[in-house]
This record gives sequence, structure tokens and C-alpha cells, in this order.
Amino acid sequence: MMKKNPLHTIVSPKSIAIFGASNNSATMGTTHLANVIHNGYKGKVWPIHPKEKSIFGLPAYSSVAELPEPADLALLILRASLVPEVLEECGKKGIKHAIILSGGFMEAGKEGKEPQERLDSVARDYDIRYVGPNCIGVINSSLSLNMTFYSTKLFPGSMGFLSQSGTYVTQTTRYLTRRGIHYSSAISLGNEASIDLVDGIEYLGEDPETKAIALYIETIRRGRAFVEAAKRVSMKKPIVAYYVGGTEEGARAGLSHTGAMGGNDILHEGVFRQCGIIRAPSIGFLFDWAWALANTPRPKGRRVAIISPSGGPVASMADVCSRNTIEVPLLSEKTRKTITPFVPATATIANPVDLTFSRDPYVSAFKIPAAIFRSGEVDALLIHGVGDSIVTDRSGKESATSEIQQGLVSLKNQTACPILASTFDDHTDVSVDYVMKNDIPVYPTPERAARAMAAVMEYADWVRSNKK
Amino acid sequence: MMKKNPLHTIVSPKSIAIFGASNNSATMGTTHLANVIHNGYKGKVWPIHPKEKSIFGLPAYSSVAELPEPADLALLILRASLVPEVLEECGKKGIKHAIILSGGFMEAGKEGKEPQERLDSVARDYDIRYVGPNCIGVINSSLSLNMTFYSTKLFPGSMGFLSQSGTYVTQTTRYLTRRGIHYSSAISLGNEASIDLVDGIEYLGEDPETKAIALYIETIRRGRAFVEAAKRVSMKKPIVAYYVGGTEEGARAGLSHTGAMGGNDILHEGVFRQCGIIRAPSIGFLFDWAWALANTPRPKGRRVAIISPSGGPVASMADVCSRNTIEVPLLSEKTRKTITPFVPATATIANPVDLTFSRDPYVSAFKIPAAIFRSGEVDALLIHGVGDSIVTDRSGKESATSEIQQGLVSLKNQTACPILASTFDDHTDVSVDYVMKNDIPVYPTPERAARAMAAVMEYADWVRSNKK
Repeated sequence: MMKKNPLHTIVSPKSIAIFGASNNSATMGTTHLANVIHNGYKGKVWPIHPKEKSIFGLPAYSSVAELPEPADLALLILRASLVPEVLEECGKKGIKHAIILSGGFMEAGKEGKEPQERLDSVARDYDIRYVGPNCIGVINSSLSLNMTFYSTKLFPGSMGFLSQSGTYVTQTTRYLTRRGIHYSSAISLGNEASIDLVDGIEYLGEDPETKAIALYIETIRRGRAFVEAAKRVSMKKPIVAYYVGGTEEGARAGLSHTGAMGGNDILHEGVFRQCGIIRAPSIGFLFDWAWALANTPRPKGRRVAIISPSGGPVASMADVCSRNTIEVPLLSEKTRKTITPFVPATATIANPVDLTFSRDPYVSAFKIPAAIFRSGEVDALLIHGVGDSIVTDRSGKESATSEIQQGLVSLKNQTACPILASTFDDHTDVSVDYVMKNDIPVYPTPERAARAMAAVMEYADWVRSNKK
Repeated sequence: MMKKNPLHTIVSPKSIAIFGASNNSATMGTTHLANVIHNGYKGKVWPIHPKEKSIFGLPAYSSVAELPEPADLALLILRASLVPEVLEECGKKGIKHAIILSGGFMEAGKEGKEPQERLDSVARDYDIRYVGPNCIGVINSSLSLNMTFYSTKLFPGSMGFLSQSGTYVTQTTRYLTRRGIHYSSAISLGNEASIDLVDGIEYLGEDPETKAIALYIETIRRGRAFVEAAKRVSMKKPIVAYYVGGTEEGARAGLSHTGAMGGNDILHEGVFRQCGIIRAPSIGFLFDWAWALANTPRPKGRRVAIISPSGGPVASMADVCSRNTIEVPLLSEKTRKTITPFVPATATIANPVDLTFSRDPYVSAFKIPAAIFRSGEVDALLIHGVGDSIVTDRSGKESATSEIQQGLVSLKNQTACPILASTFDDHTDVSVDYVMKNDIPVYPTPERAARAMAAVMEYADWVRSNKK
């Protein structure tokens, strides 16, 4: 029987023993505890402290031995020298899973070697699997569980994230929330001494909340296992990776960061292609693309319709599509005839469909694209201008504004083609927020929508070619 | 004597005659008028209307002939068939400058040919120069003058923008304002029947408010004049261009949009290089890079220091630098010794400088980079993590948070090296807002800061090589 992936317990623990929290609010450990208990996590939380009797109103235990039962998970925010001993106490208590945040191990060079060897030995003796060390923690949105020092409001999401940078798990949460993107879970892997990328990919592959997987990679420690896991998982769930270890400078930064040994860029490019992993060139595109892949069906081909009342954005989208080998096919005479009654005389309907202005928002966002989809001449839709302001400012008629958005959401619910949108407005615009809440990704510029569509198509191509 | 560029008057008119505004708030023309008078413009505004006696409390004139004097500028928001006649009336009154928003000319194909010929003839007879037709208007932030239908709050800025898309002048203003980027002036060029890109480049080259010029290009109608003007201007002011006409799909969209004939991508690439124009691959990067170029001194070389308490972002910045031939040189032993006292034991100071955490924010943002600048070993600085949240969440000490930002601003005021920053927080974070208001561009991801630095260096290289 295959062993259960330890991340199931680590990401969704029923009880957590926390080491390093106190009533001194200036320590990292205390901040972790505060974030665990103040976000709505419903499990048991047991602070362990040699002196404190209670912390934040929770009874504190002077040692892990005194816990009423073995915690599902131990969270260690202690200095490196204490970690092996505390982990051993956890092992003696019967705790099998840990997150070790402490730095001072492999990433510290020679100095960190001995502490790591002691950790290895304890983990072996007591059959403990752990995330870290030198990580920032784990977030599970569906449990409202934030085991990082970074305070943030969690929303249920569908993007699973594995990161060899803690910053990208924490500081990015507000960036993502502003964009309407949310984690299913996010794991800061740190030095990967016990649990690594491969375990993470396998876990997220099994996690029902996760619809797409995003990876921030400085190094791949187990090449063959990585390829096998990624290939298997990406047949059912898309994986997007941002890899920085391929340049000398990126690799140097990674080495001191998490002891990561970067490697040849072209070689990694090949590995990613072989596994069906979509490679993103930046953290921004990583999230952009995983978001699109988590929220769209697989298109049947590479043909897209581009629709907007705005000429510049359609030209930009068309240009980006062309550079990414997405077809923007001329619509047939027959299809043009079906949409002609809906568009102003000034419109161009060849594809891109430049409406010049929206005579009727619902028609623009629903009837026209629906007619194009029915023609079978395209496989996907890019639409710019789902924000409120375009319409309210012109007509002053507030009720009209939601028709674009409602039309778009109806369209999405009735089609098997992916739809990605863009607007220069943001989530503070209620219309944009509405569209995003209905799982249509909305990008801040037209090109970012088009590039995300290219990622969606690249993944669909890979799945198709591997099923043959 | 060289003729004065007509855009000086069109962008900064002392009086405006508006055609097409009424007391019916649902028309475009009315919205234009509202935006002109409600933003704080101090010049004279004269609505012309055949029936209305007053519009928005302003006395309306039944014809342009009745105006007390020739307006500096006529703003025409009328249907195409009326435009030649009205422009002729303007000419008779002695008006020499106009903005014609009406569509239905060249972009309409055959149908628009005759109206355009009539326009040409009137303009010739009365010596009138105009922006448009088929444009969206002009914005001049220093006069709080918004001559577009798009309502937006204007802030003084230093990025001049010429656009063959009206959308990119209007919808983008809120996007840019959220980012802390502001126009000096922005001109929607439309069909460029009288005033084109070349006139715009020459004008912005002369405009003292404009520190960098951004171009959105679907076509270059006067190739030789473009090269001459761009080459001359870019020796004193950076120009960044986003060109979409180089792909078949982009060109097709442009043709129906503004009658633009796109052309060979490689050829245009060559033209841009020859003129010292930095080519951006998207509207987002166009603004990113023009913002950086408007707010940084020219670096002396291509060597950068990367500093942050966050390991992932420094690795990402290093990777992007490497891919854009920016050096991230290892700091000398001597320089490392000067910064060692300021950093935590866990830090890596080789460059990238990964602080792991900020022991003292002011030291991180001022003393360390100042020491590195003094060494003469780098020409520029990239810094990630200027947002509030990183510090407040850890220490809970609110007063400490502004020290990073104050340090950074002091540093900027004392160095001749460009500084670009990034944060996952946004302008709603007071610290980020403070840094941006002090003219240090702050980008939403580390890579976007690094790519903007690459643009800054590319421009500096060009200026250097052309001065030789």
C-alpha cells in the first residue's frame, strides 16, 4: 500500500503544538500563533512554553510530554540549536509531522551541517516528516489556517502553491487578494530537508481543492522523481513553474537563500516541457497563468475570438496572440452575418471584433460571443473592458453596467470554451469583483490576459498530445 | 524661423470652443464638457449650440461667429458629416487649432475618404492644425485639463504619452493613478490626418513638464521624419515605444481601428534601435519603463546592487538582471567589510544582498546601499520590500516602518545612481505612497523593477554610445 503523503496531515492538522510563541508580541513565534488562532482555524492549538502558563488566553504546556494527546502537527519557531532536541521530544510523544521554521541549517553553509544531521537522525528514529527548516510556514485557506508570521485574510481558492521562497507565500497574499486570486494551500518549502517539491506536487495532485499548481523553484533536488511526479500530476492538473536557478546570478542568490543548487537553464526548460509544466518567466506571470488554468476548461484548439469596445486593447491582444502562435481567425461570412445585427455600424467584426462602443452591454458580452462560439470557428474568448467605468461614464445609466458582467458570467456557464478578460479597473470596481467571484479571471492589462490564454492553450496542447 | 508646434496651443489652450455638448447628459460631447470644467481648468470654456442658451451654467453661443474672440482651440464632438462645415466656420472666425473626436473618416474605409478630403481642404484654406479625427482627446495634467469623455482625477506628472489608441489615454488613467504614475500630457492621436506621432514627439521633446515619452504605435506614417525627430529628442529625453503593427493580427486590428498600416516587425525593431527608442513588449511595460526613465538619473554602467530582506525576490531580480545583461557583481572584500556591521549574521552580502530580515530599517534602506554606492562597485540599486507590512507585522512597532522609506528617499537625494523598488503592497500602503510621491518608482513585483532597470540601462547605453 502506498504511504499517505505527510502533507495531508501537515496542511490540514486537527491539532497543532506550537513552540516559540509567548506573551511577548515582538517575537516571530508569537505572530505565528496569533495568525493561527485569529483567522478562524477550528482545530486545537497547544502552545508549549517553559514558563508561560497561558498565551493569548490559551493554556500553555511546559513541555510537549504534557499534551493530552500527540498533536497532528508540531510548529517549531525556535533557534536552530534547540530544534533537534525539541523534535526528539515531539517524536517521543508520538508526533509524526512538523513544520520547522528555524534558519541556521543547510543554507548557513558548513555551520548548518551538523544541526541538519542531528535533525535527520531524529526524524529517522521517530518516523517524522517535516516541512523546512528555514521556511515560513503553510497556509490552508479552506481551514482558514495561516501558519506563517504574515497576517492576511484568507479566502477559499483553487491555486495550490509550492515555493522555495517564504516571501512568495506571504507578502504575495495581499497582492493576490487584490487581484482576486486565492490559494487552496500554499507551502513554503525552505531547505526541503524532509519534504520537497516532489512531495508537494504529489500532495497538490491529490488535493481536491487545488485546480492548478504553481511552483516557485530555485532548485530541483530529486530530478527523476520530479519528472515522474510532475508528468503524472500534470495529466490531470495543470502545473506552472517559475524557475530562477538557470542563470548564474539567480543560482548564486538561491544557494545562500535555501542552499539551492541551480542548474542549466536549457536543461530545466527541457525537463519542464517533458512534464507538461508551463514555464512562467516571473512571479507575476506564474500567478497570472495558474489562475487562468485553475478557472478555465481545456480549449479544443488554438483559435481565439477577441472582443472589446476598445481598439487599442484588441490590437494588443491580437499582437500578443500572434507572438504566441494563437490563431485569431477571420470569422466566416456566415458568422459575421449573425453578429452584424448586434453591432454598431462603426464596428469591425472580422476578428478581432472591435465594437468601437457597446450599443448594448448584454449583447456585447453575451450574444455576440455566444454566436461566435456557436459557429465553432474559435476555441476561446479574450474580452477587454469588463469594468464598470466604461459604461457608467458614457451613459450615466448605472443599471446598464452590470449587464456586461452578467452576460459574461452567463456565457461562461454555457460554454466549454475558456474565457479570460481584462480591464484597467481593479477589484474595487464592483463589476470586476463580480466577474472574478464568478471564476472568470480578469487581468489588469489586455496582454496579460492574452499571455495567460497562451498558457491555457499550451497546457491543453500538451494534454492532447500525451493522450494520443 | 521654425514654426511653433501647434500642440503647444492644443495641449495648453487659454480658451476652448466646444461643439457637441448640450444639457443632455447622455451624449459624449456633454461628458467632455463636464470633464473640462469639473477638473479645475482655469481657461475660458465656450460651448457652441444651435438651441441651448446655457450649458452647465455657462453661456452657450449659437454659432462660433458669435464668440467674443477666436478660441485657442475648437473641440469637435459631432457626427462626421457636420465636421468639415463646422471646421470651416472655425476657420472663418480665426481659430487655428482643433481636436476632432468624430469617427467616420479614414478608419471607415471608402466611405470616409470624401469627408477627409473636405477636412484637408478646409484645414489648408484656413491654416488649421488639428488632432484626430477619430480620437478621444487630450489631457494636460499641469492645467488640470481633461478633454476626454473619461472622468478621472488628474495629478501633475512627468510622463508624456502619445497614443494611437484612445483607450490607452483614458481607461489607463485610473490604472496609472493606482500605480502612482501620472501624465504630463497625453494625446490620443486618432487617424493623424493633420498632427501625427512626429509632431507629438517634437512637442513632448520641447515640453518642460515631460521627462520621458511613452508611445503606443500601430503605424508610423512618416518614416524618415519619425527617425529624425525621435533621434534628436531621445538624445535629451528617453522615449519608450510599444508597437503592435508588426504582426499580421496586430496590423489587421490597427487598420480598422485608425486606418493604420502596420509594417514589418524586424524593420521597426531596427528603426527603434537606430533612434534610441526603448521598445516595450506591452502597454504595462510601456508605462513601467517610461515611469522609471522619467524618474531616474542615467547610470554610468550596467552594474546593479540588489538588496532585500526577502530571498525569493532577490533571486528573481538577479535572474531577470542576468537575462537582460545587467551585471550583479560580487562586492569586494573591502566593501563587504564596511557593510558587515549593519547586517544580521544570517545575511548574505556578496550581492545580491539578502538581509534575511531587517535589523534596522533605516540601515537597510540607507546605510547599506550608501556604503555600496560609495564603493563605486555598482551603478544602480534594486530594492525589494518598501511596503509597510513587512515591518509592522513582525515588530508591531509602527514608528519603525517609515524609516525604510525615509532612508530610501534620503539615499535617492544623495546619489547619482538610479534606484528602483518593488513591493507586493500597493499605493494604499502609506509607506509605498510616500516613496512614490518622492519620485522613486515602486513596482508590484520584483521582476518588473528589474526589467524597468534594464530599460534605464539600455537608454543610458544608447546616449553614451551616441555622444562618442
